[in-house]
Amino acid sequence: MDIFKTTRALFHLPEGVTYLDGNSLGPLPHAAQDRVDAMMRDQWGEMLITGWNKAGWMEQPSRVGDRIGKLIGAEAGHVVLGDTLSVKVYQALASALELNPDRKVILSDSGNFPTDLYMAQGLIRMLDRDLELRVVPPEDVEANLKDDIAVMMLTQVDYRSGRMHDMAHLTEVAHRSNIITIWDLAHSAGAVPVDVSKAKADFAVGCSYKYLNSGPGGPAFIYVAPRYADVVTPALSGWLGHAAPFDFDLNYKAGAGIERMRVGTPAIIQIAALEAALDIWDMVDMAQVRSRAIELSELFIKEVETRCPELVLASPRDAAQRGSQVSFAHPQGYAIMQALIAHGVVGDFRAPDILRFGITPLYLGHDDIIRAAKTLQTVMDGALWDRDAYRVRARVT
Amino acid sequence: MDIFKTTRALFHLPEGVTYLDGNSLGPLPHAAQDRVDAMMRDQWGEMLITGWNKAGWMEQPSRVGDRIGKLIGAEAGHVVLGDTLSVKVYQALASALELNPDRKVILSDSGNFPTDLYMAQGLIRMLDRDLELRVVPPEDVEANLKDDIAVMMLTQVDYRSGRMHDMAHLTEVAHRSNIITIWDLAHSAGAVPVDVSKAKADFAVGCSYKYLNSGPGGPAFIYVAPRYADVVTPALSGWLGHAAPFDFDLNYKAGAGIERMRVGTPAIIQIAALEAALDIWDMVDMAQVRSRAIELSELFIKEVETRCPELVLASPRDAAQRGSQVSFAHPQGYAIMQALIAHGVVGDFRAPDILRFGITPLYLGHDDIIRAAKTLQTVMDGALWDRDAYRVRARVT
Repeated sequence: MDIFKTTRALFHLPEGVTYLDGNSLGPLPHAAQDRVDAMMRDQWGEMLITGWNKAGWMEQPSRVGDRIGKLIGAEAGHVVLGDTLSVKVYQALASALELNPDRKVILSDSGNFPTDLYMAQGLIRMLDRDLELRVVPPEDVEANLKDDIAVMMLTQVDYRSGRMHDMAHLTEVAHRSNIITIWDLAHSAGAVPVDVSKAKADFAVGCSYKYLNSGPGGPAFIYVAPRYADVVTPALSGWLGHAAPFDFDLNYKAGAGIERMRVGTPAIIQIAALEAALDIWDMVDMAQVRSRAIELSELFIKEVETRCPELVLASPRDAAQRGSQVSFAHPQGYAIMQALIAHGVVGDFRAPDILRFGITPLYLGHDDIIRAAKTLQTVMDGALWDRDAYRVRARVT
Repeated sequence: MDIFKTTRALFHLPEGVTYLDGNSLGPLPHAAQDRVDAMMRDQWGEMLITGWNKAGWMEQPSRVGDRIGKLIGAEAGHVVLGDTLSVKVYQALASALELNPDRKVILSDSGNFPTDLYMAQGLIRMLDRDLELRVVPPEDVEANLKDDIAVMMLTQVDYRSGRMHDMAHLTEVAHRSNIITIWDLAHSAGAVPVDVSKAKADFAVGCSYKYLNSGPGGPAFIYVAPRYADVVTPALSGWLGHAAPFDFDLNYKAGAGIERMRVGTPAIIQIAALEAALDIWDMVDMAQVRSRAIELSELFIKEVETRCPELVLASPRDAAQRGSQVSFAHPQGYAIMQALIAHGVVGDFRAPDILRFGITPLYLGHDDIIRAAKTLQTVMDGALWDRDAYRVRARVT
């Protein structure tokens, strides 16, 4: 039997909705609902404070972090959950800069998600030592990997176009010039095969609520390569990253390895949802997911291009250079997406003109893809969008 | 009818357990279980990505933050939820230091919770500009409020002894020397009446999982006084603190007022639990809660001192100087607490010798207090604790 028929049944998909926005927020796994309910009743309700030991809450950030680690090729014991992706970017960047103290430039690209750039800007402003954030077009990154760069900070898969950087290659080029690398895997983890260990990435960060389906506000994660895990001193030196949190020392002493990247009390309810969602990932392997995602993406591109000639492909045509989303451009993209959603097909819009569609084989099949393309055609042919809505700002993440 | 009989019925309290550890983790409100279940099913499950607008997820950090604001005397629109307390301490401290750029000293006390000191240490190390963290005994804080101090950073209620600083007085003394003040309300919010506005506190931070009963890992909150809310530039400049997050600008521009203290995607499942827990606070007022807490605390002190003469009161005897907890000291405190918990009375232990008991009128009454004291007597009289457990490290938060 097709494993993806099995996994699809594990999600709640609303009646009448074709959901191609799992690259923004994954749908609810039935098991997450049950797991959270049970966690609240049996653990928080019954164990109360003793849940930190009896239910293993205290160890969850590293134990569950390791389960994400498997999906991104991390060495065991080198991923920890916590906070939001923005906070994890900040931690990685502050640590990376300290590993290259004599250099002044953080290199990123204009395809990075803005919060990564904002966190860098805030850090630079605060450090006040002539650091520079150099933002170049994605295609110019490699040519800019010179000896003046301290840190290369990139999001592997572009949130708008789905264009994917070659992580192993850029990391290798960066390392030749002794540049520390940070990879944001927000649109990679659970979307495409990733191997941070093989690629020799120095730091990686990501979120769990997109392709990993942990629910709104699920915890972020951070990976630090084994060679640096015991070397870096965290900028956000919170008590749960302390070597002995329950000694209540007045002075910070960094914990062992990745544990030091913990900050404060972990969000246990959100982690319960994440853990149930990760069980689904144990049933598949990433190569299998990737292969199906490419098949569905190619089908979607073909169907949309045939049915809706006004839409222009905004993603790389070569599947190998594309993450697990397909984007099309149209000047009235916002209004078209609103109309499409009103007709039961949910994608999203990114300014100025991008219609985004997440391709997520765990719960999407061929029929969904065809239905989405046909509905898009109906909207386009009938010009069913509200032309006055053009330039209204999207309010989805 | 006694309102506290009503509120008590709103919590799940495990059979056979007398819970005096709500100062560490509050118990489960029945409504939180239902609210989270409904939120997951009806919002995440059915609305999917549109929940950010339709269910108002995006506005929750400020809307629900305001509900906590009411409990701490904040002006409306000046509290926002997010992250952990450690992260919020870091934000407040980085901003406070910028308001006093020519001074070099952060004043805190040895009764502060360690993570506040750790976050300060990490920030100082990173800023690398001769800043000093000066940690004095709690009783020496006032005498140290001199012109060299940039920021006074204190936790109002000591996590071990329950000793409470006079917020209004110390803030006034600090302001006379142009010192910026940060108050950590971890053991104050929902525990004692707080009025940050009247006290003229500059920054306040706190957590929601203790007296506010939001569950393990519930979100933290931050208050910035109106006079600074539009002035400070956040150190952690994440996209949800941007003036227009969905414009996806490449450059950070701080949002209006307290909104700029937001960082990344809020933990919506945890916030659902918090919001249900806060409904209970709408039924009472803090003066009423405080009055009952003092009554129960005095009763507990009297009963324990009468029944267990070996235990030495480690909290201020004057109720006005005490938060909503009572602590006793004993060299074998850890082992005694383990035995007490085994007998169904849950408090906790803090090194080196403190037995802590949270006094939480929303779900504790006179009978519970008497039962706790009697059980403690049984443990002490029978020497029922394991003497070999002495010095074993507590693993509760």
